[in-house]
Amino acid sequence: MSTVLALHTSDVRFPTSTSLDGSDAMNPDPDYSAAYVRIVTDADDGLEGHGFVFTIGRGNDVQVAAITALSAYLVGRNAEDLLEHMGATWREFVWDSQLRWLGPEKGVMHMAIGAVVNALWDLKAKRAGLPLWQLLGRMAPEQLVELVDFRYLTDALTPGDALRILRAAVPGRAEREAELLATGYPAYTTTPGWLGYSDAKLVRLAAEAVDEGFGMIKLKVGGNIDDDIRRMRLARAAVGPDVLIGVDANQRWGVAEAIEWMSHLAEFDVAWLEEPTSPDDILGHAAIARGVAPIPIATGEHMANRIMFKQFLQADALQVLQIDATRVGGVNENITILLLAAQFGVRVCPHAGGVGLCEAVQHLAMFDFVAVSATTEGRMIEFVDHLHEHFLTPVVLDHGAYLAPLAPGAGTEMLAASRDEYSVTAHD
Amino acid sequence: MSTVLALHTSDVRFPTSTSLDGSDAMNPDPDYSAAYVRIVTDADDGLEGHGFVFTIGRGNDVQVAAITALSAYLVGRNAEDLLEHMGATWREFVWDSQLRWLGPEKGVMHMAIGAVVNALWDLKAKRAGLPLWQLLGRMAPEQLVELVDFRYLTDALTPGDALRILRAAVPGRAEREAELLATGYPAYTTTPGWLGYSDAKLVRLAAEAVDEGFGMIKLKVGGNIDDDIRRMRLARAAVGPDVLIGVDANQRWGVAEAIEWMSHLAEFDVAWLEEPTSPDDILGHAAIARGVAPIPIATGEHMANRIMFKQFLQADALQVLQIDATRVGGVNENITILLLAAQFGVRVCPHAGGVGLCEAVQHLAMFDFVAVSATTEGRMIEFVDHLHEHFLTPVVLDHGAYLAPLAPGAGTEMLAASRDEYSVTAHD
Repeated sequence: MSTVLALHTSDVRFPTSTSLDGSDAMNPDPDYSAAYVRIVTDADDGLEGHGFVFTIGRGNDVQVAAITALSAYLVGRNAEDLLEHMGATWREFVWDSQLRWLGPEKGVMHMAIGAVVNALWDLKAKRAGLPLWQLLGRMAPEQLVELVDFRYLTDALTPGDALRILRAAVPGRAEREAELLATGYPAYTTTPGWLGYSDAKLVRLAAEAVDEGFGMIKLKVGGNIDDDIRRMRLARAAVGPDVLIGVDANQRWGVAEAIEWMSHLAEFDVAWLEEPTSPDDILGHAAIARGVAPIPIATGEHMANRIMFKQFLQADALQVLQIDATRVGGVNENITILLLAAQFGVRVCPHAGGVGLCEAVQHLAMFDFVAVSATTEGRMIEFVDHLHEHFLTPVVLDHGAYLAPLAPGAGTEMLAASRDEYSVTAHD
Repeated sequence: MSTVLALHTSDVRFPTSTSLDGSDAMNPDPDYSAAYVRIVTDADDGLEGHGFVFTIGRGNDVQVAAITALSAYLVGRNAEDLLEHMGATWREFVWDSQLRWLGPEKGVMHMAIGAVVNALWDLKAKRAGLPLWQLLGRMAPEQLVELVDFRYLTDALTPGDALRILRAAVPGRAEREAELLATGYPAYTTTPGWLGYSDAKLVRLAAEAVDEGFGMIKLKVGGNIDDDIRRMRLARAAVGPDVLIGVDANQRWGVAEAIEWMSHLAEFDVAWLEEPTSPDDILGHAAIARGVAPIPIATGEHMANRIMFKQFLQADALQVLQIDATRVGGVNENITILLLAAQFGVRVCPHAGGVGLCEAVQHLAMFDFVAVSATTEGRMIEFVDHLHEHFLTPVVLDHGAYLAPLAPGAGTEMLAASRDEYSVTAHD
């Protein structure tokens, strides 16, 4: 038996705005940051649970304050109780009536809960001696269903539906684990496409991406239509006709503008249109989807919670679902979202990049392949070549695929030296 | 010319959980709280702008931290620049790309922006020597349109639509001002209906409400169906057939459960069903609206922003729109929501209660009557008899109506003595 001793938080900020890495039509000068949490117990094993919320700079201190406020819920608690009943643990945070008022289930407080939930999963996986994707992928369907909160979902997904999906994927779990260990999970890259890059840099990086084995690249659009047309033409010429090119507007447009803008880019064979408008606008996305068909709509990285994902699926407002490791209420809510996607038969292509998002989200995609959807058809995890060196177990890409991580944990542990060097305020 | 010197914040908490005032099916033990901000300039007039976010206890410190983080945007700025261009001021906060990442436009960071925007409006109205409702109600349609951010809205409301609505209400503005000054704005009361009250207290307070001239009362429901049936029967007997009774489930249900539950209450002639499910569930509310018709659906107090309101209106998911003074991005966003309601011809019945919500939201309802919808038909402002004594200019009710406030400002100034007495941490 062990007790939670402390939540240590850090306000970690990398000065990425100086290089325009990560620049897009809505985010011209991001400083990639993490509101970071480290959960420490008195167990002899010395293991810690690590988690974080990715932000892009200002306000990271507010996000840290929200995580710090959760200390009162955890310090002094029996760690085994928390870790053995992760469904109940999630509900305890999310359904706290007073904290819930600050969302409900959205924004700073919900993301803080997600970071703590993810840190607990990191600790649970480390204690089990397994990478998170294997830990989850070996749980019984009944155990997985207990992690899911079905409130507000039963008009689209019931516990019975979830059990049916999970049980159908039990046969073949071991084979799919072996397949991941042998060849990894497909990836695409956004590295060439940032809006702040020159044409020459775009062309060079696009060609390199093809050489590295990626089957898809993605370009940021929405700043200027003439620039977008020129950049799409250059990118298509650089990668040839067989590599997919997606475009990402980062919420720049209204409904009519999105449809009009895309009419100028359709000739370049667009693999998907990502975030054309506000992530809250379900009906707007549905209208855009009808207007730009057959180009599929991809979105999800800014979607606040499972209730929004449910409606996007009900309204056929997205055709490519993009989970994010730190936007919603952590691993539990992302499992819920993966089940919703399976229920609607929609493919999942996780959002990544930022700080540690690749390291974290790969576990969810691999779990999905092993135990939920049982397929990688049309699915890829985003890859951006930023800041991996700051993590204890950085992602490994090979021939355009994420190699399955083997280290115990959720992939969320940043190097202590990096945390120290880039912390603007120490909260430990 | 004057300069912003400081934002002083306070974490104000009233121990309301001891009396079960404010108890409902989702919030059993609220401690009504305010994350409070006071904007001070170096002007000779000594006037300050006051604003706040209402919360129900835990997490109020996080909300205060978010407001405090906005100091960096305001301190040292020219106050006249900020106040004369309140549309631009709103956009500067809401469209800050780094802060926006923490929502976008929802939760703790968005509400913090709302508090600061409201405090600036309070200062602007005090400087003008007018109550906010009169200040807004005398602005030209073109000035009001400049306050509105139409991004993500133009599929439902264009600047031209907004101008047309506002210009149509110019004739008669003076008469409607005079009418408000003479007779006030209709109110309904939630005071009798808290879930933690005994049957005897419910009956006594319901009868008192009728005696005081209220045309509607509201009951909290969703705890236990037998209790709800008994309480509805008692309330109906207490108020007679001519007083309206609304019910409020505070997000307790899923879609099917809401429809089933209401089938047991319909016989009592329900004026509206409020918050049957998650405030994010547009499609769920639309399904419930169809399922419980002709009972109208009322919601809005937890709705994150104008984009959600737009869709609820597009989907006919609400028939009574409830604005809240401190949930969205302040006065500017609430003006936007009032224009959306007018565009769709839906009545507005503001949410109030909590800490200072009655004092704040009455200005918006009265402005709507003077300059937007030009009607009070079917409209009432919620009234709850809590904590008014802590405000400098408490609301005045007479014969079931809010009397028009005459004091300059937005009604948002709490007494210094109350702030001091109930502050748990001083941030000044």
